[in-house]
Amino acid sequence: MSAHQIPKTQKAAVFYENNGPVEYKEIDVPTPKANELLINIKYSGVCHTDLHAWKGDWPLAVKLPLVGGHEGAGVVVGMGENVKNWKIGDYAGVKWLNGSCMSCESCELGNESNCADADLSGYTHDGSFQQYCTADAVQAAKIPQGTDLAEVAPILCAGVTVYKALKSARLQAGDWVAISGACGGLGSLAIQYAKAMGYRVLGIDGGDGKEELFRQLGGEVFIDFRTSKNIVEDVVKVTNGGAHGVINVSVSEGAIGASTEYVRANGTVVLVGLPAGAKCKSDVFNQVVKSTSITGSYVGNRADTREALDFFARGLVKSPIKLCGLSELPEVYEKMEKGLIVGRYVVDTSK
Amino acid sequence: MSAHQIPKTQKAAVFYENNGPVEYKEIDVPTPKANELLINIKYSGVCHTDLHAWKGDWPLAVKLPLVGGHEGAGVVVGMGENVKNWKIGDYAGVKWLNGSCMSCESCELGNESNCADADLSGYTHDGSFQQYCTADAVQAAKIPQGTDLAEVAPILCAGVTVYKALKSARLQAGDWVAISGACGGLGSLAIQYAKAMGYRVLGIDGGDGKEELFRQLGGEVFIDFRTSKNIVEDVVKVTNGGAHGVINVSVSEGAIGASTEYVRANGTVVLVGLPAGAKCKSDVFNQVVKSTSITGSYVGNRADTREALDFFARGLVKSPIKLCGLSELPEVYEKMEKGLIVGRYVVDTSK
Amino acid sequence: MSAHQIPKTQKAAVFYENNGPVEYKEIDVPTPKANELLINIKYSGVCHTDLHAWKGDWPLAVKLPLVGGHEGAGVVVGMGENVKNWKIGDYAGVKWLNGSCMSCESCELGNESNCADADLSGYTHDGSFQQYCTADAVQAAKIPQGTDLAEVAPILCAGVTVYKALKSARLQAGDWVAISGACGGLGSLAIQYAKAMGYRVLGIDGGDGKEELFRQLGGEVFIDFRTSKNIVEDVVKVTNGGAHGVINVSVSEGAIGASTEYVRANGTVVLVGLPAGAKCKSDVFNQVVKSTSITGSYVGNRADTREALDFFARGLVKSPIKLCGLSELPEVYEKMEKGLIVGRYVVDTSK
Amino acid sequence: MSAHQIPKTQKAAVFYENNGPVEYKEIDVPTPKANELLINIKYSGVCHTDLHAWKGDWPLAVKLPLVGGHEGAGVVVGMGENVKNWKIGDYAGVKWLNGSCMSCESCELGNESNCADADLSGYTHDGSFQQYCTADAVQAAKIPQGTDLAEVAPILCAGVTVYKALKSARLQAGDWVAISGACGGLGSLAIQYAKAMGYRVLGIDGGDGKEELFRQLGGEVFIDFRTSKNIVEDVVKVTNGGAHGVINVSVSEGAIGASTEYVRANGTVVLVGLPAGAKCKSDVFNQVVKSTSITGSYVGNRADTREALDFFARGLVKSPIKLCGLSELPEVYEKMEKGLIVGRYVVDTSK
Repeated sequence: MSAHQIPKTQKAAVFYENNGPVEYKEIDVPTPKANELLINIKYSGVCHTDLHAWKGDWPLAVKLPLVGGHEGAGVVVGMGENVKNWKIGDYAGVKWLNGSCMSCESCELGNESNCADADLSGYTHDGSFQQYCTADAVQAAKIPQGTDLAEVAPILCAGVTVYKALKSARLQAGDWVAISGACGGLGSLAIQYAKAMGYRVLGIDGGDGKEELFRQLGGEVFIDFRTSKNIVEDVVKVTNGGAHGVINVSVSEGAIGASTEYVRANGTVVLVGLPAGAKCKSDVFNQVVKSTSITGSYVGNRADTREALDFFARGLVKSPIKLCGLSELPEVYEKMEKGLIVGRYVVDTSK
Repeated sequence: MSAHQIPKTQKAAVFYENNGPVEYKEIDVPTPKANELLINIKYSGVCHTDLHAWKGDWPLAVKLPLVGGHEGAGVVVGMGENVKNWKIGDYAGVKWLNGSCMSCESCELGNESNCADADLSGYTHDGSFQQYCTADAVQAAKIPQGTDLAEVAPILCAGVTVYKALKSARLQAGDWVAISGACGGLGSLAIQYAKAMGYRVLGIDGGDGKEELFRQLGGEVFIDFRTSKNIVEDVVKVTNGGAHGVINVSVSEGAIGASTEYVRANGTVVLVGLPAGAKCKSDVFNQVVKSTSITGSYVGNRADTREALDFFARGLVKSPIKLCGLSELPEVYEKMEKGLIVGRYVVDTSK
Repeated sequence: MSAHQIPKTQKAAVFYENNGPVEYKEIDVPTPKANELLINIKYSGVCHTDLHAWKGDWPLAVKLPLVGGHEGAGVVVGMGENVKNWKIGDYAGVKWLNGSCMSCESCELGNESNCADADLSGYTHDGSFQQYCTADAVQAAKIPQGTDLAEVAPILCAGVTVYKALKSARLQAGDWVAISGACGGLGSLAIQYAKAMGYRVLGIDGGDGKEELFRQLGGEVFIDFRTSKNIVEDVVKVTNGGAHGVINVSVSEGAIGASTEYVRANGTVVLVGLPAGAKCKSDVFNQVVKSTSITGSYVGNRADTREALDFFARGLVKSPIKLCGLSELPEVYEKMEKGLIVGRYVVDTSK
Repeated sequence: MSAHQIPKTQKAAVFYENNGPVEYKEIDVPTPKANELLINIKYSGVCHTDLHAWKGDWPLAVKLPLVGGHEGAGVVVGMGENVKNWKIGDYAGVKWLNGSCMSCESCELGNESNCADADLSGYTHDGSFQQYCTADAVQAAKIPQGTDLAEVAPILCAGVTVYKALKSARLQAGDWVAISGACGGLGSLAIQYAKAMGYRVLGIDGGDGKEELFRQLGGEVFIDFRTSKNIVEDVVKVTNGGAHGVINVSVSEGAIGASTEYVRANGTVVLVGLPAGAKCKSDVFNQVVKSTSITGSYVGNRADTREALDFFARGLVKSPIKLCGLSELPEVYEKMEKGLIVGRYVVDTSK
């Protein structure tokens, strides 16, 4: 790659206080620290978490002023002096976990997202809603050259999250996995990853066109919660004993509770979605006698990220997106707040 | 062993209807089927489950009339023509799971207690509160010759159950395991098994003399729920981040809920005790962000039983018991119902 | 199913001494023991092991006289009084492991083929080269109704064996598996199972038409040992570091040795084929520094069998066969000895 | 801790060419890079690998001039600006793996010692045979305050290595582990770790006083290879079927070969020792039919190191050492070359 001229300033979407205006403006290009890459972000996905960061309605405080964004895909244009294993011109991704201490028990075990000192892109570290973003070189995602940088953006958070959830279910090829909320953004990716991993996919969702989408993506059995008389019985019957694993991307507390009942003996219910204040309630007697597990799955680690990207790069997972300019981000937030968004928005940082 | 004369009749404790009198009387000695052993029971432990079987207050119907008991230790005196791997004179144990189909998915995976056709000693199959009892040769426990048959009896159910629960926590040597309800019958065994497996044991309980007992059995840190101001904070502090595993032998719903909070990131809460109608309630956000698991553990399988007995046979686990005659069983039930029992009663079938 | 009239006598292929004539003759129909099924065998695959049983050139003595065969597919027509979970009319399969003690350490852990008292179909127990065969009900394979009984026959041994080998490699979807000897009988099935499990398949073999077959079955990268200048380097290059797992169905000692070099760091070499007297030689320094494993995989257990059959029943694995009559078995053995057989012969017991 | 005055120069043991003189002299104190600690080394163990580095007889080239040593224990006195999770005054250990790229597949999976860019203390990076040493902050070992810095030194390499090997055997408490070469430096530590992990320890070694040492350290069964008529039969008999795991710290090719025969069905042989040019030869038929594994184990990762140190800090593992001054290192090398060393030498950097 010929030398990339790094400008002094760049376009970014910044806000200075929670719920304050998201300004599309010229700011300084940041300088990477010894361990950091400087990435020329081309595209960045917009996630519900970005909305929470802007509104400041989570218990964890955000950096202010803040450039949001944690699904950024771009090209490496600079790096600090301690960076290894990267070169200028590599494709790189910015993801939710920007960095961690790498030396606590969680980090040592590869559970870096559980690190108490986790640094979060677009939350505690300026993220990918700008043209030039810094990222810890160890955590930044390596994106295979030739990948479509717009389409890959949502894989960096949504894709990795559902892939990790599927791994957390400890299934083997041929097992049944039920996806509760199968046809939303996370669910649509989960269907495809599950299929590529050799699982049999049962989807639960409701609404027009959902079953068709489910089948196009590789799903095998669809249960419409609007018409099913008894979800638990239906799942148990069609899977001949219950699903070996369940991925809860639905944010309904009732749906989560039901999943503890239709999971197979010795099977695993995975919690992924984060409905505010929700409890997972499970009957102790049932859980003991059936020896089932309920496990929480957060974002994936470095290996999970590489693997999730590999499935995408090999064409086994498609990521349908809607493109718009970075300057239009405030309108995207507005639609998101009103629940008007279907599918994944990706912003083009050049517009 | 010289030939054992098998009599035509024997002493047994039988009841003919739920809550009816438990009669100590002479009944016929049963004949083993092709796949069964005939065991001359010497001693049998008395478990709360026996009380439930007699009262009939569980959703699963019992055989009537019924000889209860599922912690029976004795000597093989006969066997059916298809029995392999046993000989007359071997020490054998009767345990909760008398037999299963061995060919369903659960059985194939070694999860025989989850078999839909499970046959249960002292519940759906006449159990060990008699001098001669039949038992499926595949499921019957091999007890090492030379073992004290009275002391080993409680290992066949209580011991195997806590050992299996510890295995279900997926720990490694050096990890912290918290035992909630550490100083009761199950807890006392759990402390010893945990210690023998190389874990660091934290016990939670309350009452006079509990801490002393805990330390005698090998426990390291004791938290008294009567004096702790905040159990969750105390556990997290002393374990430097939370227990890697938790064994809930307590039957308090509140204690179970607390265990979902003081478990370490990526750790496992094990449900073992069966408080009637209890729910395990876990905060979804907390469970996802900490990536913790909650898993139900039922009774152990054949391998778990052999292993649990091996720890006992090697002297690593002690089983304190109170002996009485089989004829006194009705009084034991009475005390049990009134909550007057401390420790484990074992009946001598010769008295 | 309407009642099946069980005749007194039947056609079978029997030999009375090793290397003696294999007689196609009328013999008595056997009577099932308490734990056994009586299966009306429709088709039976012919395996190299059958040839070894006839020649008696293995260290383990065969029963004499002997009816060979351990890939038999048929219909249950009778059963002993202790049989559970089967009914007349069910499709059933006879496999290599006819029965085991079910109570030794190996059996308890689901490793029944490692049982010291293993009873082997067509070796120590009359096998499936007859119209009516007895089989232990616990080990007999449940074949889904509607399955083609001729095509499924080779799955009962060859299919289960390669499926188990793939499981023994401890891979995850997206990993590279190299199959050494990819286009033979076992290899052809291994490619398909590997593909269905989500692995990326690299095949090593040589000969005309092999690469085409490999690709038709779902293979991704083919290396022809006749034209490769350096197999180890080629595998390492194309897999970007070495195969995560290797399945050695080749019986070349040199090929096995090479596999210990092209396996990836922390990867697993699986030994499946049984070249007489062969050694697996691995460089200690290389194995330590790369932390690789070499693991032996024998036939699958009950769960492996059910799972392997399920992939077949769902159409994910095809089994190309050549049909002939049971009466023609001696000619099949003759061809097999001369190395003239390509593909899998299946005998029709009605002819 | 009060401020530590870092001098400009320090004492070190340096050599300028392989096999050249090891000079005890004054050199500059190094400056830590952004990601590095500066550690005031108090003690450093002397390992055979140090001798290989000096002689240059391994295929991997060493840095020249070189300060050797990779078992260094000391105190943090400085650090680069990117270092997290450390503070001045912390106890820190220098180990074999000084640093790795942290972003290749091996690193992502926690197998950092398999990284192609691994940086090795006392080999490609100046090591702990000096008073002030730099070390990557992520890989440096955290040593609990209050630990004896002389005795802990050998744990940093020898201890971690055998602990990792034991983990690689995938055993559970109560299993039999055989240690081939039980009473040497590595073996003595292996016995103690195995005991602390709940395993039953069988030792194989020969020589006066070996059995006594073995029993003092917690071993259960000792087999003297000088008097045993058949090691394989003896191990199989005493373990009732073979050892579940074998740790080969012996460097005899014959002993390694024997271990593939006395390992139990489904058990694991671990290769740890590095006899030059040795092959591990295993009978394919035996390995398949018994379904055994042979696995290489290299040095441990960050988590293994923390765990191994924790066993030491809790007093479960003792490390007997012989102290001498850093200035005496040349004589230690000389003794080592002549095979005159029994036990572990640790150098005091202040002398």
